[in-house]
Amino acid sequence: MTLQELKKDVFEANLELVRRGLVIYTWGNVSIIDREKGIIVIKPRGIEYDDLCADDMSITDLDGNLVDGTKLLPSVDLDIHIAIYKHFKDVQAIAHTHSTHATAFAQARLDIPCLGTTHADHFYGPIPCTRALTKEETAEDYEKHTGDVIVETFIERKINPMQVFGVNVAGHGPFTWGATSTLAVENSVILEELSRMAILTRQIKSDSMLLEDYALDKHFLRKHGKNSYFYQSK
Amino acid sequence: MTLQELKKDVFEANLELVRRGLVIYTWGNVSIIDREKGIIVIKPRGIEYDDLCADDMSITDLDGNLVDGTKLLPSVDLDIHIAIYKHFKDVQAIAHTHSTHATAFAQARLDIPCLGTTHADHFYGPIPCTRALTKEETAEDYEKHTGDVIVETFIERKINPMQVFGVNVAGHGPFTWGATSTLAVENSVILEELSRMAILTRQIKSDSMLLEDYALDKHFLRKHGKNSYFYQSK
Amino acid sequence: MTLQELKKDVFEANLELVRRGLVIYTWGNVSIIDREKGIIVIKPRGIEYDDLCADDMSITDLDGNLVDGTKLLPSVDLDIHIAIYKHFKDVQAIAHTHSTHATAFAQARLDIPCLGTTHADHFYGPIPCTRALTKEETAEDYEKHTGDVIVETFIERKINPMQVFGVNVAGHGPFTWGATSTLAVENSVILEELSRMAILTRQIKSDSMLLEDYALDKHFLRKHGKNSYFYQSK
Amino acid sequence: MTLQELKKDVFEANLELVRRGLVIYTWGNVSIIDREKGIIVIKPRGIEYDDLCADDMSITDLDGNLVDGTKLLPSVDLDIHIAIYKHFKDVQAIAHTHSTHATAFAQARLDIPCLGTTHADHFYGPIPCTRALTKEETAEDYEKHTGDVIVETFIERKINPMQVFGVNVAGHGPFTWGATSTLAVENSVILEELSRMAILTRQIKSDSMLLEDYALDKHFLRKHGKNSYFYQSK
Repeated sequence: MTLQELKKDVFEANLELVRRGLVIYTWGNVSIIDREKGIIVIKPRGIEYDDLCADDMSITDLDGNLVDGTKLLPSVDLDIHIAIYKHFKDVQAIAHTHSTHATAFAQARLDIPCLGTTHADHFYGPIPCTRALTKEETAEDYEKHTGDVIVETFIERKINPMQVFGVNVAGHGPFTWGATSTLAVENSVILEELSRMAILTRQIKSDSMLLEDYALDKHFLRKHGKNSYFYQSK
Repeated sequence: MTLQELKKDVFEANLELVRRGLVIYTWGNVSIIDREKGIIVIKPRGIEYDDLCADDMSITDLDGNLVDGTKLLPSVDLDIHIAIYKHFKDVQAIAHTHSTHATAFAQARLDIPCLGTTHADHFYGPIPCTRALTKEETAEDYEKHTGDVIVETFIERKINPMQVFGVNVAGHGPFTWGATSTLAVENSVILEELSRMAILTRQIKSDSMLLEDYALDKHFLRKHGKNSYFYQSK
Repeated sequence: MTLQELKKDVFEANLELVRRGLVIYTWGNVSIIDREKGIIVIKPRGIEYDDLCADDMSITDLDGNLVDGTKLLPSVDLDIHIAIYKHFKDVQAIAHTHSTHATAFAQARLDIPCLGTTHADHFYGPIPCTRALTKEETAEDYEKHTGDVIVETFIERKINPMQVFGVNVAGHGPFTWGATSTLAVENSVILEELSRMAILTRQIKSDSMLLEDYALDKHFLRKHGKNSYFYQSK
Repeated sequence: MTLQELKKDVFEANLELVRRGLVIYTWGNVSIIDREKGIIVIKPRGIEYDDLCADDMSITDLDGNLVDGTKLLPSVDLDIHIAIYKHFKDVQAIAHTHSTHATAFAQARLDIPCLGTTHADHFYGPIPCTRALTKEETAEDYEKHTGDVIVETFIERKINPMQVFGVNVAGHGPFTWGATSTLAVENSVILEELSRMAILTRQIKSDSMLLEDYALDKHFLRKHGKNSYFYQSK
C-alpha cells in the first residue's frame, strides 16, 4: 500500500468503529503498521471523527517519532500500539475502543470466559484481563507501561496473540488486533458481542459452565486451523 | 418455485436476518428444501452478506452433494439442516442465528420457559435446549451429530416440531423452522424477543411462575389450532 | 372527525407503535371510539402493518358488530377495548402492545412501582397488574373477560383511570389509553420506558425506595392538576 | 454571540439530546447564560421538539423574568438552572435529561461510582446524588429548592463543579453543565454511558473495586489538567 492508501485504510477503519456503535466522540483509535517501511499510521489525538479526513492520519516511525510531513500529533495511546507491534510480530493492525460491555468486563477486572461456540469461532480461549498498573507505572510513561502489561499478560499466561486476538486492560478497556485493519476492527465488534452474551448468560445462570475444551478446539480450528473448512478455500 | 425463485427466496431470507439485527458478519444461515425436486438451497459458507447475490446460493441434493452448476460450497452447517429436514417432514425452511439473548440461553443450557402469552402465541410450550454433544460426536461428523441431537431432543421429550418451531443447541445457539423461509426467519426473530423478555422477567422476579397451561392452550390454539380465529380467514 | 379521518387517525397511531419500536409483525393494536356516532375504529386482525392502509381499519358498533361497509374482521382484542370503553367513560382511545420491558412486568405479575419523577409526571401512582384470569374465564369469552379483569382492578383498588392511564394484564402485557390516540400511544411509549427504568433501578439497588408521596403529588399535579403550570397555558 | 445566535445555539443543543437518544417527547431541556448581557436562553415549556424553531427559545433575566419580545414561557425547570448559574460562576450552559441509565441511578439514590478510565477521562470522581427534597421544599418553590440542593451537595461534599460536570437529583434525574452548550450536552451523553457501564460492571461483579486514585488523577489530568497532553495543543 502507498502512504495514501495506508492513511485511507486507517481512516476508514476508525469510521467503521463509529458506524458499528463502538465509539462516540473522540473515543477509540485504530492504527496499522507497515513493517517494511518502518512506519505506523494512527488516528490523531483529540479530534472529533466528523472533523477528520484520511489525510489527517498521523504517521510515526516505530519509536513514535513524527515522520516528515505529518501535521497532527498521534493518538495519546500510540505507545500502547507500539509495545504491541514490537512484541507481537504478526500483528499488523490494532483497534482500541471503550465499547460498553467489553469495558464493563475491564472494569470488573475479569477475563471474558468462553461460554459458547460464538466465542470459540473467533477467540481460542478466554479473553484475558491484564493486572492493574502500579502507581509508578501510571505516573511515568503511562501509555508505554500499558502496552507492556498487555504483552506481559500474554507471555506469563502463555497465550498466543494470533489465537486470542484481543485483551482487556484492567479498569480501562479492550484492545484487539489482526492481520489487517478490517480484522482488527471486526475483532473489536465480536469481543463486544461476546461480552454482552457472557453477561446475559451469567444473568440467566450465575454458575453457567465453560464450553467444553473439545468444542472450543472444534470451532476454533474448523475456522482458523490448518485443516480449516469454514471458508470457500484455504 | 423455479430454481431461480428458490435462490432468490433463500437470499432474501438471509438478508432479513441482517436487517432484523440477528446476524453480523457471516454469522447465521437460512435454507429451504424442495422435497419434490429433491434439493436444498442454502447460503454458501464464509462469505460476507455484502458480497453475496441470489445466484451465489448453494444447491445440494438431500445427502449434501453439490448439484451441477453450483459454484460455491454450502454453509458448514448444511448437515444440521439435512438432519432436521430428514426427520421433520413438514419443515420446509430453516434459519440459524447467534442472536444475542437466545444464544445466552443456549450458553446457560436451559430451556426458554413459557412465561407469558407472547410466547404462547408462537411456541406451544418451552423452547428446548439440547444436551451437549459428546467428545466423540464433536470429533467426527460434528455438524451431522448436531442435527441428530436436535431430532433426539424432540423425540425423547415428545415435542411436536410443528408446534414448537425452534430449538437451542447447548453451548451453541438457536435453529428455527417453518413452512416457508419467511416463517423460519420470523420464528428466529420471535425466539430472540421471547428470550429477552424471559431474562427481564426473571430479573424482576427470579421465581416468576410459568404461564398457566390453559392460557398456553388458549393463545396457541386461537392462532394455530383448527378453530383458530386469529386471522381474517382459516 | 369524519369516518375517513377516524380511520386515518387509528392507522397512523398503529404505525407510530412500530416506529417507536414497541411492535413487531402483527403484534399490538390501537382503537378509538366515537361515542356520539356509537362506533369503534380498530386495526383489523392478523395482517402485517406493511400490508395495511387507512381504509382497511375495521369499524364496529359498541357491541362489536361490524358496521356496514367494513371488509376486514377487527383485532381479536376488540372485546378488551369494548370493556374498557364501556366502564371508563373518559377514555377515547386505547393502545395495546407487547413492548419488551412492560411485558416483563406483566410476566412477573407485579405492579410497576413509582420510583421517580419521570413516572410521577405521567402516571399518578403504581401501574397495576391485574390478577390472572381463571380457567373458566379463559375458556369462554376470553377477550371480554380480559377487559373485565382490567376494569375490576381499577374499581377494587380505587384507581382513577384518568390518573393512571394504563395497566398490565397478568401474564400478557400492557394496555394504555387517553383522550386521543396520540395520548394513548404516548402512554404506551412512556410505560415501556418507565418499566425499563424500574428494572435498572432495582438492579442497582434491589430495595430502592418508592418516590415520596409529596413528590408524586407535586410532579403529577404540576402537569395534570387544575393548577398545572407545565404547559404554555391551561 | 448575538441574541439570534444564542437562540440557535440553545435550539441545536436541545435537538442534539433527541438525536443522541437521551430525550423523548418534551422531556429534557438545555439553557445557556450570557453573563455580560445578563440573560438566560432556555427551551420553552411543554412543547414537542418537532413544533419548535430557534426563534421559540425563551429569554429571561437572571431572576427568571421574561425579557421583552419573548413569546413563550420558559421550561418549568428554569429556577433549577438559575440556582446553578448563580453559584457555579464558570458554568455557561446546562443540560437536563431523563436518560434511562442515569435516571436509574437517581432513582436508586446512589452516586455513580468511578469504576474505570472512561469515567476518569471526563469526571474527576464519583458523580454525586443529592439528598431528597423535604416535604416543605417540595410544596413551595420546588424548582428553586431543587437547584439549591444541587449547590448544597457540591459545597458540603467539597466537589468542584468544573471537575465534576454533573449531578443526579435524588428520585429525579441528571443535570450536566460546561463552558458551552456543546460540552453540557456531551456531558449528558457521557454521564448516561458511564451509568450504563457501571450497572453492567456491578452485574458482572457486584463488589467490583473503584478505580485507583492515581489512575483517576492520571486520566482526568492528562485531559483536563494544566499539563494536559490529550489534545493537539493546549
